[in-house]
Amino acid sequence: MSETTFVLDPRLEADTQHITALPLCDVLLMNDARYAWLILVPRLAGCTEILDLPEAGRTQLWQEINHVAAALRGTVPCDKLNIGALGNIVRQLHVHVIARKEGDTAWPGPVWGHGAATPYDDIALQPLMRRLRQALA
Amino acid sequence: MSETTFVLDPRLEADTQHITALPLCDVLLMNDARYAWLILVPRLAGCTEILDLPEAGRTQLWQEINHVAAALRGTVPCDKLNIGALGNIVRQLHVHVIARKEGDTAWPGPVWGHGAATPYDDIALQPLMRRLRQALA
Repeated sequence: MSETTFVLDPRLEADTQHITALPLCDVLLMNDARYAWLILVPRLAGCTEILDLPEAGRTQLWQEINHVAAALRGTVPCDKLNIGALGNIVRQLHVHVIARKEGDTAWPGPVWGHGAATPYDDIALQPLMRRLRQALA
Repeated sequence: MSETTFVLDPRLEADTQHITALPLCDVLLMNDARYAWLILVPRLAGCTEILDLPEAGRTQLWQEINHVAAALRGTVPCDKLNIGALGNIVRQLHVHVIARKEGDTAWPGPVWGHGAATPYDDIALQPLMRRLRQALA
């Protein structure tokens, strides 16, 4: 595992907007207006499982998940946070933090694999990205 | 939040077998032979989100998630761990740790909401519970 050789998975890159870089993770916004959906990606090459991280990395990751979850809940309407590390399709280690609303399109099921994304329009996207960056700063 | 008034959600109780008690969490086995599926439940009443836990509790929870994930991966065949805190239906805070196999019935989608559980028969259940308890001890 080496930060110098880290390259973001091309599927994550295609589906997201970059919000900010925390000490360990890049924070990405899923380009899906159906949910406020952030993804943390540790900038370490070759990691698939949280257990693959060295202990200090795991501790840092959990702290950053907490930070992102609190920032998201403070920024958008949220009835329930969903936090998940799946990686069945994209194996590069990444952690989802999603603000769920009762009655959203996948409610009460999980968002993963539920229909097609609805991309943001710029009018909605730019203010949301700005507010998320402020909350995460 | 008080440990003295903690009562396990009746849906979790109905769907699981008790494996062990870690310092913070009860560890439960989902009675669904389609996947090796553990659930951690902090013994604290009134918690819905990981963010609701005091900081020491969050740290302990993440350590116990790591411990359970490592024990599960060391006990059963596992191509990918899935770790998730959703709680859209059962609001009592609980964290799923699931050993996924490529080609399992929900693969590569998430397990939550995918069809009906296949209960274990006793011949499979008792040895699995014993091995999980040994791995978690």
